[in-house]
Amino acid sequence: MDIMIINGPNLNMLGQRQPEIYGHETLGDIEAKCRAEAEALGLTIGWFQSNHEGELVTAIQEARETARAIAINAAAYTHTSIALYDALSMFEGPKVELHLSHVHARESFRHHSMISGVVTGVIAGFGSSSYKLAIHALSDILKS
Amino acid sequence: MDIMIINGPNLNMLGQRQPEIYGHETLGDIEAKCRAEAEALGLTIGWFQSNHEGELVTAIQEARETARAIAINAAAYTHTSIALYDALSMFEGPKVELHLSHVHARESFRHHSMISGVVTGVIAGFGSSSYKLAIHALSDILKS
Amino acid sequence: MDIMIINGPNLNMLGQRQPEIYGHETLGDIEAKCRAEAEALGLTIGWFQSNHEGELVTAIQEARETARAIAINAAAYTHTSIALYDALSMFEGPKVELHLSHVHARESFRHHSMISGVVTGVIAGFGSSSYKLAIHALSDILKS
Amino acid sequence: MDIMIINGPNLNMLGQRQPEIYGHETLGDIEAKCRAEAEALGLTIGWFQSNHEGELVTAIQEARETARAIAINAAAYTHTSIALYDALSMFEGPKVELHLSHVHARESFRHHSMISGVVTGVIAGFGSSSYKLAIHALSDILKS
Amino acid sequence: MDIMIINGPNLNMLGQRQPEIYGHETLGDIEAKCRAEAEALGLTIGWFQSNHEGELVTAIQEARETARAIAINAAAYTHTSIALYDALSMFEGPKVELHLSHVHARESFRHHSMISGVVTGVIAGFGSSSYKLAIHALSDILKS
Amino acid sequence: MDIMIINGPNLNMLGQRQPEIYGHETLGDIEAKCRAEAEALGLTIGWFQSNHEGELVTAIQEARETARAIAINAAAYTHTSIALYDALSMFEGPKVELHLSHVHARESFRHHSMISGVVTGVIAGFGSSSYKLAIHALSDILKS
Amino acid sequence: MDIMIINGPNLNMLGQRQPEIYGHETLGDIEAKCRAEAEALGLTIGWFQSNHEGELVTAIQEARETARAIAINAAAYTHTSIALYDALSMFEGPKVELHLSHVHARESFRHHSMISGVVTGVIAGFGSSSYKLAIHALSDILKS
Amino acid sequence: MDIMIINGPNLNMLGQRQPEIYGHETLGDIEAKCRAEAEALGLTIGWFQSNHEGELVTAIQEARETARAIAINAAAYTHTSIALYDALSMFEGPKVELHLSHVHARESFRHHSMISGVVTGVIAGFGSSSYKLAIHALSDILKS
Amino acid sequence: MDIMIINGPNLNMLGQRQPEIYGHETLGDIEAKCRAEAEALGLTIGWFQSNHEGELVTAIQEARETARAIAINAAAYTHTSIALYDALSMFEGPKVELHLSHVHARESFRHHSMISGVVTGVIAGFGSSSYKLAIHALSDILKS
Amino acid sequence: MDIMIINGPNLNMLGQRQPEIYGHETLGDIEAKCRAEAEALGLTIGWFQSNHEGELVTAIQEARETARAIAINAAAYTHTSIALYDALSMFEGPKVELHLSHVHARESFRHHSMISGVVTGVIAGFGSSSYKLAIHALSDILKS
Amino acid sequence: MDIMIINGPNLNMLGQRQPEIYGHETLGDIEAKCRAEAEALGLTIGWFQSNHEGELVTAIQEARETARAIAINAAAYTHTSIALYDALSMFEGPKVELHLSHVHARESFRHHSMISGVVTGVIAGFGSSSYKLAIHALSDILKS
Amino acid sequence: MDIMIINGPNLNMLGQRQPEIYGHETLGDIEAKCRAEAEALGLTIGWFQSNHEGELVTAIQEARETARAIAINAAAYTHTSIALYDALSMFEGPKVELHLSHVHARESFRHHSMISGVVTGVIAGFGSSSYKLAIHALSDILKS
Repeated sequence: MDIMIINGPNLNMLGQRQPEIYGHETLGDIEAKCRAEAEALGLTIGWFQSNHEGELVTAIQEARETARAIAINAAAYTHTSIALYDALSMFEGPKVELHLSHVHARESFRHHSMISGVVTGVIAGFGSSSYKLAIHALSDILKS
Repeated sequence: MDIMIINGPNLNMLGQRQPEIYGHETLGDIEAKCRAEAEALGLTIGWFQSNHEGELVTAIQEARETARAIAINAAAYTHTSIALYDALSMFEGPKVELHLSHVHARESFRHHSMISGVVTGVIAGFGSSSYKLAIHALSDILKS
Repeated sequence: MDIMIINGPNLNMLGQRQPEIYGHETLGDIEAKCRAEAEALGLTIGWFQSNHEGELVTAIQEARETARAIAINAAAYTHTSIALYDALSMFEGPKVELHLSHVHARESFRHHSMISGVVTGVIAGFGSSSYKLAIHALSDILKS
Repeated sequence: MDIMIINGPNLNMLGQRQPEIYGHETLGDIEAKCRAEAEALGLTIGWFQSNHEGELVTAIQEARETARAIAINAAAYTHTSIALYDALSMFEGPKVELHLSHVHARESFRHHSMISGVVTGVIAGFGSSSYKLAIHALSDILKS
Repeated sequence: MDIMIINGPNLNMLGQRQPEIYGHETLGDIEAKCRAEAEALGLTIGWFQSNHEGELVTAIQEARETARAIAINAAAYTHTSIALYDALSMFEGPKVELHLSHVHARESFRHHSMISGVVTGVIAGFGSSSYKLAIHALSDILKS
Repeated sequence: MDIMIINGPNLNMLGQRQPEIYGHETLGDIEAKCRAEAEALGLTIGWFQSNHEGELVTAIQEARETARAIAINAAAYTHTSIALYDALSMFEGPKVELHLSHVHARESFRHHSMISGVVTGVIAGFGSSSYKLAIHALSDILKS
Repeated sequence: MDIMIINGPNLNMLGQRQPEIYGHETLGDIEAKCRAEAEALGLTIGWFQSNHEGELVTAIQEARETARAIAINAAAYTHTSIALYDALSMFEGPKVELHLSHVHARESFRHHSMISGVVTGVIAGFGSSSYKLAIHALSDILKS
Repeated sequence: MDIMIINGPNLNMLGQRQPEIYGHETLGDIEAKCRAEAEALGLTIGWFQSNHEGELVTAIQEARETARAIAINAAAYTHTSIALYDALSMFEGPKVELHLSHVHARESFRHHSMISGVVTGVIAGFGSSSYKLAIHALSDILKS
Repeated sequence: MDIMIINGPNLNMLGQRQPEIYGHETLGDIEAKCRAEAEALGLTIGWFQSNHEGELVTAIQEARETARAIAINAAAYTHTSIALYDALSMFEGPKVELHLSHVHARESFRHHSMISGVVTGVIAGFGSSSYKLAIHALSDILKS
Repeated sequence: MDIMIINGPNLNMLGQRQPEIYGHETLGDIEAKCRAEAEALGLTIGWFQSNHEGELVTAIQEARETARAIAINAAAYTHTSIALYDALSMFEGPKVELHLSHVHARESFRHHSMISGVVTGVIAGFGSSSYKLAIHALSDILKS
Repeated sequence: MDIMIINGPNLNMLGQRQPEIYGHETLGDIEAKCRAEAEALGLTIGWFQSNHEGELVTAIQEARETARAIAINAAAYTHTSIALYDALSMFEGPKVELHLSHVHARESFRHHSMISGVVTGVIAGFGSSSYKLAIHALSDILKS
Repeated sequence: MDIMIINGPNLNMLGQRQPEIYGHETLGDIEAKCRAEAEALGLTIGWFQSNHEGELVTAIQEARETARAIAINAAAYTHTSIALYDALSMFEGPKVELHLSHVHARESFRHHSMISGVVTGVIAGFGSSSYKLAIHALSDILKS
């Protein structure tokens, strides 16, 4: 697999939750778009969502064996999880932190990202296009 | 179901843990009291406890389909969980945050509630009566 | 008297002030409801309102002689008054801090309660039902 | 009445207190100037001073019935009174916060104004002319 | 009068309130001791207590005409009152801030004194002897 | 010249920018009003606007030779510019800091004024009338 | 023009400055890449660089007339400029904040972005690819 | 069982993760060493690792029935988990907090331990010898 | 010995150092006054001064064997010395912290006393009379 | 010498000082235990105690010539001494910071260790066993 | 050129501005002194002053081609300019930060230097001699 | 004597300690250089080093009788010693604070100087040349 895409808590509710912030697409819609976009770029992707911090940690650990790159939307755990920070720091390939909304323009407790220190770059605020841009960004890095 | 009552980490130990703060009743005792109280008010309740933040998130998500109101004693996760905040913000019915002890009179790390911003009201400090009062409060709102 | 109910500054304006936050009932309406509720529980209540911090302090001091419990909505003085803290700490019966609105979900200067450290419990966010719930909570404690 | 002018604690000592900061005029001198200035603009004014926070709260509450605008020099209570903030937030006409001295250039505990968030504007640092400018500012608003 | 002794909120309850901190003497007992001590030193004293911040402010203002020195136990208002600070700053004679208990060894919100910046000295922690020591301290200053 | 009026960054966009906060008048409209107001008071004014911090510094330096007083709306630079603070501290005549909107009631990064420590007084929150009031305030001072 | 690309201080030194962080490409190289990328997407771009905060403000103001979208790498001014914040808040089209390096993984004074609150989204950490991704992001928005 | 040894998130990756900080031993190697060390001291040990905060909470709860002492390397959860704090506070036997690396000499977010307040002692910085020293420390306490 | 009086760094320079703050008396003058005052009260005193934190610690340790009470003017070490705090906490008799000047009205780094938490009371601001008052205060306690 | 053991202020009082925290052993008892423990491991130790920060600095400097490792219980100086930090940073062998009590579970001013950044590891909370564990830890390192 | 000397905002006013802090010399006087001092040391110097942050950035950029060392008195921009920090970090020769006055003994907003992290050393507090000392310091470095 | 040069803790280790920061010269080498430099300027110097804060305080006190100026490298005590601040504030001649390394570019606990408020100027970052520059600076002042 080229890119493992990992999704955090409550993202399974996408489309039902505060559509004025997150839009009307479901997580399934976004996965389909990502698969199409990746295919067009000649890349394969994996897809995972969990509400459990521990399962997200394990998913990152397993990606060390199965993927060349990670794109992660850690949602609520972005802001507090040292365990995700530690897991990501062990992954040696490129890593993108992505967000649907522009987290720095929302509540103050979303301004700090615990994981920013160990990712390659960040993309935030473009709705489901954030996923597409992350795939492009990783594609560029994997090809260079 | 009218009210889903959700209990966080370590509450399964009630009756064994620091009885000078939490009393001698077990969580089972409290559930029985709550069921009796609800029945008297003509309401049905659901009951859930978990030590896992992710399972509590999922329980709140599922309540969107199965309950008209939520009463939540998030225990230790009260103070840090943005994931619970996000899950609760998606639930549109009335929501009560409850605590057995008076959290603002204990250690300073219990003074801040991460979830207060998205609940209807808070009841704290009355031991197992906090549950009973929460049911009364939600009963009033559901009937109005 | 069983319960002295003490109301702080600007609560005399209830019904005229920001009804989207505080509702349309006047303080007189709430007093009537409280008297009815208490009577149903076999309890007698006292009632006091003042815009003066000093008069609220004196009211609490006098309650030591005349009441078994206190319910206090200290309004704006909740957040800054050490004098109320000291007066409440001398009252040995049960004490409930109550608020009409959910103070922790409003301006940040309302998040801290100076008096929380010396009350038995807190009830906030249920409009005039907060008073009714406080009477129930104190009724339970006085009867146990 | 067009404008109620409300004066806080220790302003009754004006002329005797630190004249290098506050000048030699008494509060009576200033009241006379204000009445003359208002008359010239075709406006009527009310005048009140108290050392009691509670009486200032009540004066603002009463102004809702008797005045179209408020000018307030809350003096020491400027910096700490949530009760004044709440009372002012109920007054729907224009409100000016005024100060004789330039509070932001004095002790650091005078830099924060608790009431700034609910007034129309602020005028500070011009000695007794601050009162005159406040009357002019309110005159413009009342006439527009 | 030589020394005006001013007492703040809740001191009227002395003897009944937390005797392990404040002792068993009433405020009347202390007043009697002070009058005896002053008489022995050839001094006359005045005595005032109020739960109202505004009345304490006025008492300090009036002392400008009637007393050569002030001893003030501002109790709870010690820690927050800028109005007392302003009133004391206008009194030109010697001023002693006194406390029965050792405020710096109690709750953290009692560690800061708002009025310390404008008094001559402070005496704290000696129970009712703090009053006696304050009289001695002022006696020394008045005689020098 | 009697009063040099100096305008900071983005004020050249007035009338186009967030009219709900700043109103529909352009900076040219305000200049015209100021000239009329000054003329009525027998005063002459100068007028300057720049988006460059350095040009605003130079304008203040030059006003030492050409003007008796300064009125400055430093806009965004109000909150951070030590260079404006230093330049204003060299100007010996009266100086008014003015703002169209009530800065203390907006985003928290607008609450602190870097330049407040070196101006005579401040006027904020009255829209274009803030300029008129500033001219009146300076007129009073220049004439006294 | 479709997209105005604005570059802040010291970016004219690109290729010579800390190549281990910023890479070996010059700003001219990046401009060429951007023009090629835009052309491929059927878009026209503008290009501007300045070391002056005031010129960057003016460039944003002018873009209101000449461009449908803005991509800005504000470099050092990102972290402190309220003037850029104000200028960007007046531009009604989509706005991308971009950075070559991953600012949140560098010195702490680069962690806060003053302008994040008024942009549509942010892209950081992909070297010169950050520009390409910004053009793609804006292309998606302009076409939707 | 004498000592339950509990290991937190990402410790299952030991030997693969940042060997310059954590060394080349795997968690299995350490377990073997601990079992040998304990056997030599005449003690039996239990062993558990999980990436899930909730499972670690449950493991501590169960140890109340099955073990006389706990040694815990909570890894990333050390710094944030109130749930572990609450679970450990219910365990009445001796408890050692241990760390492979010297956490106070690493990133600042590792300087604070949430669980320190409820353990008997702490051992940090000696690589896998930290486990051995913890067993010795608990052996001394269990034998005294 | 009844009272050991311990003096900290730079007090040996008294009379030469900033007489506008500390007065013209030398430390020898104060010692003589103290001896006279103590004798009048029927008490014996010891006297020690050092610029060395370690020697002051040792002096307090030795006083456990030789004195019934301590009066300490720790001067600069007042604000930072945990070693003095620890030494004083071992002394079981009454302990007075004294200061010549009113430390809370001077530089902010003198506002915090490290040792306040373990003394009986504090006397500050009365020049050399602070010593006399401390002896009186200790005399009262020793005699009660 | 293999290990220099350095003890800070007030440790000479051990056995007399707060035995509920520090136990009944004297520092001489602990030294004897340490010598026995070291001998059993085939190591020689040195022993030093001082109340003077400067003498502790010198002891560390001298250990560069005379010892292979350092164990230091810096007591009160642990929390504030940059001089000890600097001296320890010059010692190239292994260094253990040790504490009798669990400093992180006591007063907040004991939570920060100034010297943690330059030691190999830390052992705290095991009473006099902390010394024994430190010798074992250093023995392991010296032998590896 | 050997040394480029760069002067920030308001230094062109030297001699006219607060002479009690900055002395009576003009910037021209200081330039003349510097040229004489440099000549005596066999060095050539460049000289630049601007009120514009952007021009100072450009001056540092150009010095990369034209000078071996930089001496910079950034005045007000010292405390806030990340752009100067970035520009200086690209200059590879020795760099001295200098100040006429002792900035750490003035207003608190002058205590922090933004640029200290990228200069070789700092000289402050010696009036115009600070320039002379900076030239000597750079002369020593250039010759070694 | 003209200049007393006082050196703080650990400077006696110079040449052996972290030569990448402090260079290879010993303190004796620097003393010799200083004596030569002073002689060339026609000045005499004194020289002192101690690891004891108290001895440094005494050295400054004695310099009042024996020297016209002080140059002090207080090393670790620079950042915390109020006793040195008090001692230096009594010395009326010129005083230079000097540092070998550029303290503001090192660990954050070295950024604050406790003594800066009472010295004439500061020189830091030039290795042993800092001493030479300090002598020159004091020579200029003594001769003016």
